Amino acid sequence: MSPDPLTHLYSREALCAQPSAIRDICALVAKPEVRSLAGGWPDPAKFPLKAIRRIFDKLITQHGARLFQYGSTEGLAELREVLADRMKTGGMADVDPDSLIITHGSAQGMHLAAQVFIDREDVVFVGLPTYFGGPGAVRSRSGKVIGIPVDDDGLNVDSLRLEATRLKASGKRVKGVYVIPNFQNPTGVTLSLERRRQLVRLAEIHDLVIFEDDPYGELRFEGDPLPSLKSLDRSGRVIHLRSLSKTFVPGLRLGWAAGDSGAIRQMVVAKQFADAATNTPAQYILLEFIRQGLLDKQIQDNIKFYRSKRDFMLEQMERYFPDEVTWNRPQGGFFIFVQIPGDMDAADLFRQAVAKNVAFVTGQSFFVDGSGHNTLRLSYAQAGHQDIEFAIRKIGNLIKAHLMDRKTNNAA
Amino acid sequence: MSPDPLTHLYSREALCAQPSAIRDICALVAKPEVRSLAGGWPDPAKFPLKAIRRIFDKLITQHGARLFQYGSTEGLAELREVLADRMKTGGMADVDPDSLIITHGSAQGMHLAAQVFIDREDVVFVGLPTYFGGPGAVRSRSGKVIGIPVDDDGLNVDSLRLEATRLKASGKRVKGVYVIPNFQNPTGVTLSLERRRQLVRLAEIHDLVIFEDDPYGELRFEGDPLPSLKSLDRSGRVIHLRSLSKTFVPGLRLGWAAGDSGAIRQMVVAKQFADAATNTPAQYILLEFIRQGLLDKQIQDNIKFYRSKRDFMLEQMERYFPDEVTWNRPQGGFFIFVQIPGDMDAADLFRQAVAKNVAFVTGQSFFVDGSGHNTLRLSYAQAGHQDIEFAIRKIGNLIKAHLMDRKTNNAA
Repeated sequence: MSPDPLTHLYSREALCAQPSAIRDICALVAKPEVRSLAGGWPDPAKFPLKAIRRIFDKLITQHGARLFQYGSTEGLAELREVLADRMKTGGMADVDPDSLIITHGSAQGMHLAAQVFIDREDVVFVGLPTYFGGPGAVRSRSGKVIGIPVDDDGLNVDSLRLEATRLKASGKRVKGVYVIPNFQNPTGVTLSLERRRQLVRLAEIHDLVIFEDDPYGELRFEGDPLPSLKSLDRSGRVIHLRSLSKTFVPGLRLGWAAGDSGAIRQMVVAKQFADAATNTPAQYILLEFIRQGLLDKQIQDNIKFYRSKRDFMLEQMERYFPDEVTWNRPQGGFFIFVQIPGDMDAADLFRQAVAKNVAFVTGQSFFVDGSGHNTLRLSYAQAGHQDIEFAIRKIGNLIKAHLMDRKTNNAA
Repeated sequence: MSPDPLTHLYSREALCAQPSAIRDICALVAKPEVRSLAGGWPDPAKFPLKAIRRIFDKLITQHGARLFQYGSTEGLAELREVLADRMKTGGMADVDPDSLIITHGSAQGMHLAAQVFIDREDVVFVGLPTYFGGPGAVRSRSGKVIGIPVDDDGLNVDSLRLEATRLKASGKRVKGVYVIPNFQNPTGVTLSLERRRQLVRLAEIHDLVIFEDDPYGELRFEGDPLPSLKSLDRSGRVIHLRSLSKTFVPGLRLGWAAGDSGAIRQMVVAKQFADAATNTPAQYILLEFIRQGLLDKQIQDNIKFYRSKRDFMLEQMERYFPDEVTWNRPQGGFFIFVQIPGDMDAADLFRQAVAKNVAFVTGQSFFVDGSGHNTLRLSYAQAGHQDIEFAIRKIGNLIKAHLMDRKTNNAA
């Protein structure tokens, strides 16, 4: 059999598909001796093992075999009720169980939303930089992804307005915006309230769908929570995507999407042929975890835990990084984004770091236009204090060494 | 907010998507007083509850938090090894862990395969009738589904040859065949060995991908197992889809796909953006269940159990159905397919049956060309003996009443 004998039969999207750069980096740095600030995975030290074990036992006694039967495609009715109630409390008054679908993680929510809304060549705006899940889902439908700069207030809505107007004038079908409003991956920045209002207004004017991906919003360390785009929207054009991976556990693959009930019904139809239904016991476990008040407790614990890790990493960065390096202070979530001097390439730094058993993610993989060569994403989520100190020191030393070399060369 | 305010923004596929008729029927007959032969769900009485509870407990002790962390997109390495070994024993010598992906049920396997292989307007052949999962996945990519008659030996390969030649001559991109070779849903028929050989040969000649969906193959009640299409193929063009829903439990949403390693790699890339990874504890539970030899035992138990249910239902059909009704004797799986007199409409019969608290699935929903008005699918999988007897008697009486009416009308 020749290598890849079926390539000539692949779909257009398969021929263009790129595996996620981060997964490749994670594979590269899977060696146990590597101190990694790469992955955006939560720290398993915080997983509520005992509670899950106790709940699972109770559920088997209570539900018996029903716990392992197929569920409905839209998800467990009681769980959708409980989640809808949580969202109402969170300012999204119009959410009810019928405008909510349980998904295998928020990744599936975005995937189904793309299936419902994106046609070939439809344009979707994304942050420069952004997490690649949104662009990946859009590209799996042969949609076009256009990058919009992200600054300290999040996605630059003025740039978005100009681009939308320009592209529409040139005849493009401008369809939507993929945005991570809170503690964005990879930059850690939060979309300001003013920008949120502007974005919702802009979406109405240009008839856009907003894909609001919010896996980190509940992990706010400080400052007041800002209203979601969904709560500011009055025209039903926000598909709000949520994940339990960062607030509960990722391995149960739970998330949900909420939006206009017609659109959610379409996502349910798409899910029938995508994987038929979400894992049944996982949904019951989550339902019980919420009912016992444990999710709120877990979120409060996680906030304390990750805040202290953020603070520790910021301290180490102050201590070891030279003045030529800049970064932000995220108010929540998992990530700090770093600018190294413009004459440095983060890919070179990555190779040098891996040689010293330290890993991070180069920023470039988050820029759909291929820019960002001098940026990197650091995650404090998974590494312990010792590893964080070690990794930041090594990265700092490598940058300092580069600056020294430059000085020497300039002097020569 | 107007009803469905976003319809004008839906994708072409969303605008064409039809919810599964069976799910609608299942919703209709969800009342507890209804004796249902409708759903193709397994009987929860056979779910290995105690073993799952014991294994889960052991796994938490053994793996701790790791059990709930993200897994890799392709699935747990040890599980892929164990499944590849099982397939080798089953005559598929060239399967190794790298040519295998764990999926959220076989539905997801077909969905990912469609993503990799189907472009807009690509033609995929399916059985007349067939389970709607294959057609649904193809249509979600705007592929074209063409029905090929199914007879007692399964998909009619001669018809397929003629259609493939005709469509190619007219300039269509003929891309693949979706086939359920064992105890097909809904007909219960098995593709004969000769047809299997012909189909694999035909696929080579016409450069087709074979989507071999085999959720029931291990539930063979009698007769020798036939070689899979994958084991007969020498050119790597079979994507072999498997499910644990009928042999283990459906609620854990586990399945796998095996095929050419290049194509499987593409399916892994597609899965990154579809749902990132399969449920971690579900995979570990299955791995342990197999390692303890329990899956083989479970399958043997299921075979005995469903064989006796099939026999019981066939007896009741002999007893209560008039001579004008015909059906087959499936050698395995869950389904018996019934032809009622040609002047009857199964949809009318269905409405009359539901009025008597009896349900089944009308055959028409399985015919992509809209034919099959006088057919129905009966499942013995979920109903108990009492319900089976009751339902078959009522259906038989309704058909007899129709025949009496006809006689009276003809005489008048």
